[in-house]
Amino acid sequence: MKTPESLFAQGRKRVIIEGVTPQVDGGRFAAKRVTGDRVEVGADIYADGHDEISAWLLYRREEERRWRETPMQPLVNDRWQGFFEVRELGRYRFTLMAWVDAFGTWRRDLQKRVAAGQDIALQFLIGAQLIEDTTADLKRSEAAQLRTYMEQLRSDAVEETKLRVSLDDELAAMMARSPHKDRIVQLDRELPLVVDRERARFSAWYEMFPRSCGGGFTEAQARLPYVAEMGFDILYLPPIHPIGHTHRKGKNNRPVAESEDVGSPWAIGSEEGGHKAIHPELGTLDDFREFLLKAKEHGLEIALDIAFQCSPDHPYVKEHPQWFRWRPDGTVQYAENPPKKYEDIFPLDFDTADWQALWEELKSVFLYWIEQGVRAFRVDNPHTKPLRFWEWLITDVKRLHPDVLFLSEAFTRPKIMYQLAKLGFTQSYTYFTWRNTRQDLTEYFTELTQTEVRNFFRPSLWPNTPDILHEYLQTGGRPALMVRFILAATLGANYGIYGPPYELGEHVPRESGSEEYLDSEKYQTRYWDLDRPDSLKPLIARVNRIRRQNPALQGDWSLRFHPAGNDQLIAYSKATDSLDNIIVVVVNLDPYHPQSGWLNLPLEEFHLPMQASFRAHDLLTGAHYTWFGPYNYVALNPYGQPAHIFSLERPT
Amino acid sequence: MKTPESLFAQGRKRVIIEGVTPQVDGGRFAAKRVTGDRVEVGADIYADGHDEISAWLLYRREEERRWRETPMQPLVNDRWQGFFEVRELGRYRFTLMAWVDAFGTWRRDLQKRVAAGQDIALQFLIGAQLIEDTTADLKRSEAAQLRTYMEQLRSDAVEETKLRVSLDDELAAMMARSPHKDRIVQLDRELPLVVDRERARFSAWYEMFPRSCGGGFTEAQARLPYVAEMGFDILYLPPIHPIGHTHRKGKNNRPVAESEDVGSPWAIGSEEGGHKAIHPELGTLDDFREFLLKAKEHGLEIALDIAFQCSPDHPYVKEHPQWFRWRPDGTVQYAENPPKKYEDIFPLDFDTADWQALWEELKSVFLYWIEQGVRAFRVDNPHTKPLRFWEWLITDVKRLHPDVLFLSEAFTRPKIMYQLAKLGFTQSYTYFTWRNTRQDLTEYFTELTQTEVRNFFRPSLWPNTPDILHEYLQTGGRPALMVRFILAATLGANYGIYGPPYELGEHVPRESGSEEYLDSEKYQTRYWDLDRPDSLKPLIARVNRIRRQNPALQGDWSLRFHPAGNDQLIAYSKATDSLDNIIVVVVNLDPYHPQSGWLNLPLEEFHLPMQASFRAHDLLTGAHYTWFGPYNYVALNPYGQPAHIFSLERPT
Repeated sequence: MKTPESLFAQGRKRVIIEGVTPQVDGGRFAAKRVTGDRVEVGADIYADGHDEISAWLLYRREEERRWRETPMQPLVNDRWQGFFEVRELGRYRFTLMAWVDAFGTWRRDLQKRVAAGQDIALQFLIGAQLIEDTTADLKRSEAAQLRTYMEQLRSDAVEETKLRVSLDDELAAMMARSPHKDRIVQLDRELPLVVDRERARFSAWYEMFPRSCGGGFTEAQARLPYVAEMGFDILYLPPIHPIGHTHRKGKNNRPVAESEDVGSPWAIGSEEGGHKAIHPELGTLDDFREFLLKAKEHGLEIALDIAFQCSPDHPYVKEHPQWFRWRPDGTVQYAENPPKKYEDIFPLDFDTADWQALWEELKSVFLYWIEQGVRAFRVDNPHTKPLRFWEWLITDVKRLHPDVLFLSEAFTRPKIMYQLAKLGFTQSYTYFTWRNTRQDLTEYFTELTQTEVRNFFRPSLWPNTPDILHEYLQTGGRPALMVRFILAATLGANYGIYGPPYELGEHVPRESGSEEYLDSEKYQTRYWDLDRPDSLKPLIARVNRIRRQNPALQGDWSLRFHPAGNDQLIAYSKATDSLDNIIVVVVNLDPYHPQSGWLNLPLEEFHLPMQASFRAHDLLTGAHYTWFGPYNYVALNPYGQPAHIFSLERPT
Repeated sequence: MKTPESLFAQGRKRVIIEGVTPQVDGGRFAAKRVTGDRVEVGADIYADGHDEISAWLLYRREEERRWRETPMQPLVNDRWQGFFEVRELGRYRFTLMAWVDAFGTWRRDLQKRVAAGQDIALQFLIGAQLIEDTTADLKRSEAAQLRTYMEQLRSDAVEETKLRVSLDDELAAMMARSPHKDRIVQLDRELPLVVDRERARFSAWYEMFPRSCGGGFTEAQARLPYVAEMGFDILYLPPIHPIGHTHRKGKNNRPVAESEDVGSPWAIGSEEGGHKAIHPELGTLDDFREFLLKAKEHGLEIALDIAFQCSPDHPYVKEHPQWFRWRPDGTVQYAENPPKKYEDIFPLDFDTADWQALWEELKSVFLYWIEQGVRAFRVDNPHTKPLRFWEWLITDVKRLHPDVLFLSEAFTRPKIMYQLAKLGFTQSYTYFTWRNTRQDLTEYFTELTQTEVRNFFRPSLWPNTPDILHEYLQTGGRPALMVRFILAATLGANYGIYGPPYELGEHVPRESGSEEYLDSEKYQTRYWDLDRPDSLKPLIARVNRIRRQNPALQGDWSLRFHPAGNDQLIAYSKATDSLDNIIVVVVNLDPYHPQSGWLNLPLEEFHLPMQASFRAHDLLTGAHYTWFGPYNYVALNPYGQPAHIFSLERPT
């Protein structure tokens, strides 16, 4: 609300600027982009009456002082648009300014008068006066240049000459840039953007327990070619820290461990160290750094899992007892969700009076691993720690290291998931894991990719995790695994799987009705036959190669769903802005029966001919189809090929 | 964007408050309500984890210093809701605060533990500690009361007693109200509301040229019973000021007037005065005040038309030449929209260096007529004057006179129309005048009544104005006039007509393709035969009586459209919150042919039986229909009855 007094003080500002995009909660949070993006800024800009408006987009990196300027262009219905490129990592800001362009209005009306055959002699004098009024505020050189125009308009030159001077483009540009200061309307805020590296937008993750590679990091090096051959970008490891022994869980989460049981990596901390230590059985810090280097040689980036919780044996319990909630009986409050109890986990008490030291220590955990060379973190259950803690931590870490990626592993209520993304998480786990039908997938991914949500929430699609073996995967056999993998890798520019159980087809739950894996790697070491003939490795490698070769699949904003006349068939497309790469995916969601239907594509939007043939090249099989018009028949058999990934090719 | 430092400073504030409604542009403008309204406030409120939250709505009149508090209640999906009543005219503010309720969380979990049969002895000590931690911040009396609870929990009373104490409602309420100060999250803004009188939401306007009543205000008094009998609330007069003679327009807007031509009331000002003067032929100021009083006796409020433009003869031209734009040839710039010229009108130059005096003078025009007793103004073409001017003027005038209504006569681009409403206009003309089809009406009125637009834009529906005789009315005969009147009066709680041409069926345009009336009252005096047998007066009187007797029709927010299986039939309902008044309107939009269809009503939403009969009482004809189930047949003949206005009546 503005007071009448403040409105009176701004009486000469006639332009309104509103409805600016992108903005997240009115600028409270940063919209997300990656380096190289062309940022499209939109706004409603208008004034009373019908005068011309001059509108400008101002932008800068946060640490720069000077704004760069670029003109906004009107679209329709008082909507304007401007662009700028973000080439560097870190934070940017942008804002807008606009004013009524008196000279531009005069120039436009002059053209109308000429067209109507009106006498325009007087108009040249009016234009000259507008120029003269402007020169006072200008630098000497600019003022001199303008004065030349002015004098020509007041001279006794012929009308044709004066008209040419009046409509001179350089004059128009100079005048559009030279408003009276008290007429300039500036947007009342600077809107923030955060620019991440490209992998924030496009990445394939592979989660793996290193202890299942037959030893520690040294042995796990041998697994790197396997992961790299499948075409993943990021190899993500569950917590690598010492594991507690008090109340350690046994195989299949049994309440009491046998002596040989290895324990859950998420029961973090023992006498051997906490969140900055490495489990001795995995090796030394040097082994880990060597592993990082080897991974890099294979084109793999290592992501660590940061889970802020402690086993009862974590050094924090003795060194910082005030960070835990002590009960009147002198014991520490273990994790619980009444009536359930988790006695092997002590949650950190963020309500502690010593919270400031706790926050700083937890931030130092990230900084420690960043120092070792890690630049990607999967954060465990961030929704059970204060939201402002994460905002502070991520903002502060990225101020020093703008290339760090934070993946939010929050499977919780929608608004909290979105809040975590707004406050800074680079990528976010999604409900994809439980969205199996055409309608559910369509609604959810339309919300994620076609609404303002996409400005802050970058979905990461996981068909499975060590905690989640969905019923569809338990019962649908190999077709189900193929379907969910292809959906994840093509619906989402960012996705991940937990392997080798995924590619090797593990599908038996711990018990009926459970989403836990039987003999889960969370509680025991598993050895995998990676050469099984039914492994999905070749499919995964092929799809990841398709992703890398087709820029359309490297972002989510172009996603559109298309009818295929059959509820079991889901069809969607992704395309580059220039339409030089158009990918159409059709998936049979039914893992048991062949399904067919007539695919209906919006050819006009793709700039493809409605009345001529074009080619659909199936990148999964290499087959070529000649299609004609928008309706084309597709049939998919789950036991052969449950999906198509077409590249549409223009007729030559 | 918050800095890491500011986030660190707020580290104990765990709750997030966002998505607060109602708000207009983030609180930049006030949401609109009327006296007696129960304001529903919504917000997304949540914290990390699963702790209980205590959330409060704070509200006050703008001039009060103390907030009143009322608790918010959770709905689903982290959405909360609270209410407060606005009983007085003027401005209110509201905001929200919330915190994690540690005691409430403990209490909830205690109940779960009891249900699970867990040992709870330790819990009483934890609860006692929570109480003790709270007492430090409280007043002595409250602290003492809490300490009593605490001591009971620490006593050796039996478990049953301690459990009763733990779950005591008064204790819970006291604890929920007593957070630690550094945990309180307060919404970062105070959101404004403006509360108008009830007529802002519900009014029927009648526009009339007083000079056509056979003289001045004295003669026009005789017309008051006629208008009152039709059931209108507001009688609105075109400008009543002296009319210029320079370049006066003749009948039918002819460029040159004859000597007896009376001129357009919108060519304001002559030697006899300007915007604070009355045309001598209409009478004196005393005559006008007498007219106001007589109108009031008939239950009619008088609205004036404020048009800020001047004839060349307006005293301002001589007294304040700096308020007009002078051209290099020494003439004043008349109104134009190149190549069109309006030489009888001088626009005020809001770009004048003397704009401050101009603003003050124009505000004083409103204050002058308010002083004479006028409380409603129809503002002519507000979109051609600076938007901040209106915001300043309306805000300032309403600060002194919160009962004044401003109706915006802006037929312009959508965003400007909305901006005028946001910045303060009480009611707004709409595109209704040009929306004639079922689809157009449905889309437009869904946008106006079912989106956030309704918080600031109060539609006023006019089937005609002195400037607009729509083609539908030109060609559709009496049925068209009936249809458009019934639509206006039932789709809109606020509506108006320009009479007597409307009720007497004037329908001939000035020329083919024009929306101007032939022999328009804008340029000449007309005498009307009010007793014509085909006058719509009885219909108008009946519909206005129905509006007054049926609260469902006195607001727009409950409007819902319903299928009738025929594109020429439009069906919609309005209902009171309590559903004790449900009105269903069905209109045949085809003025030429009978149309019929099966009306489909959402009986469950109306709490009407799906499997029993109920009565539909046609308030237009008095007929009663017995209906059964959601589908019922309707048939409407334009030459008999083109519409139904049903009241649905529950079976007894």
